[in-house]
Amino acid sequence: MKYQRERINRAQRLMKEHGILALMLMNRDDFRYFFGEIRVQPRAIIPAQGTPQVICFHAEESEIREQLPEVGVLSFRHVGEQMSAVSKTFRSLAKELHPVGDADPEDKPRIGMQLWFSTPAFLVDLFRKLNPGIELVSSDPVMDPLRMIKAPEEIDRLRRAQEIAGLGMDRIRSLLVPGVTGLDLAAEATCTMLKAGASGTSTPIHINIGLQTCWIHGKADRTVVKAGDLVVVDFTPRFDGYCANLARTFVVGRPNPRQQELIDAYLEMREVTREALQPGAAVSRLDKLGKEVCERHGLGEHHINGIAHGIGLRFEETPASTIIPQHRTVKIQENMTMTIGHTVLAVPGYGGVRFEDIYRVTPEGGELLTKYPAEVGV
Amino acid sequence: MKYQRERINRAQRLMKEHGILALMLMNRDDFRYFFGEIRVQPRAIIPAQGTPQVICFHAEESEIREQLPEVGVLSFRHVGEQMSAVSKTFRSLAKELHPVGDADPEDKPRIGMQLWFSTPAFLVDLFRKLNPGIELVSSDPVMDPLRMIKAPEEIDRLRRAQEIAGLGMDRIRSLLVPGVTGLDLAAEATCTMLKAGASGTSTPIHINIGLQTCWIHGKADRTVVKAGDLVVVDFTPRFDGYCANLARTFVVGRPNPRQQELIDAYLEMREVTREALQPGAAVSRLDKLGKEVCERHGLGEHHINGIAHGIGLRFEETPASTIIPQHRTVKIQENMTMTIGHTVLAVPGYGGVRFEDIYRVTPEGGELLTKYPAEVGV
Repeated sequence: MKYQRERINRAQRLMKEHGILALMLMNRDDFRYFFGEIRVQPRAIIPAQGTPQVICFHAEESEIREQLPEVGVLSFRHVGEQMSAVSKTFRSLAKELHPVGDADPEDKPRIGMQLWFSTPAFLVDLFRKLNPGIELVSSDPVMDPLRMIKAPEEIDRLRRAQEIAGLGMDRIRSLLVPGVTGLDLAAEATCTMLKAGASGTSTPIHINIGLQTCWIHGKADRTVVKAGDLVVVDFTPRFDGYCANLARTFVVGRPNPRQQELIDAYLEMREVTREALQPGAAVSRLDKLGKEVCERHGLGEHHINGIAHGIGLRFEETPASTIIPQHRTVKIQENMTMTIGHTVLAVPGYGGVRFEDIYRVTPEGGELLTKYPAEVGV
Repeated sequence: MKYQRERINRAQRLMKEHGILALMLMNRDDFRYFFGEIRVQPRAIIPAQGTPQVICFHAEESEIREQLPEVGVLSFRHVGEQMSAVSKTFRSLAKELHPVGDADPEDKPRIGMQLWFSTPAFLVDLFRKLNPGIELVSSDPVMDPLRMIKAPEEIDRLRRAQEIAGLGMDRIRSLLVPGVTGLDLAAEATCTMLKAGASGTSTPIHINIGLQTCWIHGKADRTVVKAGDLVVVDFTPRFDGYCANLARTFVVGRPNPRQQELIDAYLEMREVTREALQPGAAVSRLDKLGKEVCERHGLGEHHINGIAHGIGLRFEETPASTIIPQHRTVKIQENMTMTIGHTVLAVPGYGGVRFEDIYRVTPEGGELLTKYPAEVGV
């Protein structure tokens, strides 16, 4: 573990700026960002002022104290103790940092939390019930300015994660013949990625075969690959906490003209999006350009918004407009890392294609982090 | 996909009994239970009366209609359309099935949702905001009576999942020597399980080495195994949607007396719990018996509640008292499937042990689903 003092300091400045009393961390990625290590169901409190508190099972306390001497430790033996330690900490912080005015009883101290896929509704409901004097708000105004802009060591890890995804993709290319199943391919490619240093994947293994290429999400199942099939593969191995996202479309054999048309449109959409991935552009502009490409190919009715999303310690992070439509107005900044190729271009009842890579935003457009070929035929 | 008519019928009877207008399904396990297939981020509405509606991306519609002719399909192109389709369906159901009385404006129609780890808070908050006329409630009163009791075909799949976990454990046993790292072991064992038919794992790979054996959660990292180390391995591969949970403790070399004492206490706790896993016993009784064992071994202060939890299509399902303390009062029933060995018995600063298996509840106590040795030395 490694205490990231500078990141904590910056978060505290942003908390004060946004009137947030403390952050309640409940997710692996923010914990990794501040304390340098991935933990399952980590819990920590970062106050706007003063010392962060890590909350842990009592038998882990001595180890945390040794590895993170800069933090306080609140230890628990069961979930009830954990919750009362949290409530007590917030009450004490509120007393210290948020004196209640007589004027406005609605002026509750605000606690920031990452409200994203890994923050369960039942825990948030319980948190609200146990802390009625607190207003729970999204931690995005504090975390986004920090995490959207990547440091060189973060970009290195993303690059390595993406290289590992490429090794998995190589394995698929070598095995993709009629008769093989999605589960067979998934097992082989996952082994390759794990042995190359991945700690797991951010999403279920995505090997969509034939009509499954129309789906927005991925799976691997017992579907058997046939000659002529479209196959969309999307790999998301994690390396040292950082998430890859590499998608490719293959045709088992040679693409027919209709498949080739879809592929050509997608690759053209990728290129115009890459050029537009410059500081100052709004996310919505990327989709507008992509739609124009699809229209030129007579595929406008199949265009879906959301070609690009942020990526880092979380597989999808701000901006992620397919999840949070308001992110369409987010302005792109230099050294953000974003994927291009998130949305499927699918003809219902026929099939779909995708090619996704990670880019760093530069004034010259997206700089590809890790090169991987876009050859389609296998 | 396979429409599970009988399960839908039973769910609808329970919805009427509990005054629930409809279930909003947002998770893989309930979707698998009713429609026979795992999907990523599935969405479906099961009304208390009438035809279930599956909600899908527009390019998936024809496939769903073909595979599930028994259901209605609501298709969307983007997240906004999806949400308005859901709201519209609920308004129409409320009009049909929940006529508003003049007497009580607070009498809102109730929609049941699985409020568990995979249901994100931000989606639930949005759901509440978009559907102010609805009261969101837990779907447990409908789903628990159905899902807690396992059919023979479910038990077969759990058994197979657990066999696959055993193959992963064999791989660990063959590789566990000084110098190997947690990540090395994780990669090899995961490959073995995937190639044996697992579709993935329910939890991050758990190979805790040395002091990490004190943790309540697992991880695999670059920690190097040393002679004499305790190593706790917990595998959770999924087979056809059903979740395994096999944990074993190893000592690299021969256990020393202190390690052996912990191991003996745990295995004794496992046996008394297994005997008590009979219809009619409350979950809290299992912990009481386990605590008595720990006390006899002079380890009472290290005992933690939560020795057993339900398992099936979800890795932890009702009863799961370490997550929902109220589940301590759940009465065990025949043909429930439960793990024994969930909680770590850890001496802070020294190390911990666990041995976890899956059992079917019978009047004679827990019937082990899949035998796996508890030999500790490697």
